[in-house]
Amino acid sequence: MRKIEHIGIAVKNLEVSNLLFEKLFGAPAYKQEEVASEGVKTSFFMNGPNKIELLEATNPESPIAKFLEKRGEGIHHIAFDVEDILSEIERLKSEGFIVLNETPKKGADNKLVAFLHPKGTNGVLIELCQEIK
Amino acid sequence: MRKIEHIGIAVKNLEVSNLLFEKLFGAPAYKQEEVASEGVKTSFFMNGPNKIELLEATNPESPIAKFLEKRGEGIHHIAFDVEDILSEIERLKSEGFIVLNETPKKGADNKLVAFLHPKGTNGVLIELCQEIK
Repeated sequence: MRKIEHIGIAVKNLEVSNLLFEKLFGAPAYKQEEVASEGVKTSFFMNGPNKIELLEATNPESPIAKFLEKRGEGIHHIAFDVEDILSEIERLKSEGFIVLNETPKKGADNKLVAFLHPKGTNGVLIELCQEIK
Repeated sequence: MRKIEHIGIAVKNLEVSNLLFEKLFGAPAYKQEEVASEGVKTSFFMNGPNKIELLEATNPESPIAKFLEKRGEGIHHIAFDVEDILSEIERLKSEGFIVLNETPKKGADNKLVAFLHPKGTNGVLIELCQEIK
């Protein structure tokens, strides 16, 4: 794990939150992207070496819709940048972490991603992400 | 705001969580520190340009004790590194954010810190932090 790649924040309305985070960072989102397989619309803000990802649900079965229902708006996950996601999955499994996606899946922002179960990480949903070259 | 300085994670037992995050990052916490004024014991892990701060409450009135009671273990706040905390407080106030500490206070890890109210930031508790030189 080389750095915090991004922090994912669940929001009810992406357009409203885009304006809010534009004020916070003093610069607009550099891209928006829909990930249909996850039922989300996302936007990304740069912050030096890190990013902030805002996530709005596009259907009621989306994990983001369920999160909002249960917890309300707020931080949904932390994503760490990894060089080799397959070896990192193996390492973390051997350390006793519960890997939710043993086969990484395609995420937003041109990444292969895998999640760790928050039960094994102090309630924090952790995403591993490797850039697709 | 120049980068994510750290992510603060509320934990029930710092010793147990230190071992967990040591496994996650493959390296131990580089320091531990008590901030008596905030009622917390903390530990810090490096992750490239970023840090992870674990926080355990040292008394029942600590904000971390209240967070754990309400939400359980998990991400408590995001801290952004700022060059000049006073000018950043002024800028954010003028943009309509609710600044909880108009006079920055001394935080852990040799920082001056101020928080933004999560009501104004999509439910995310945001800390500004400036290194004390």
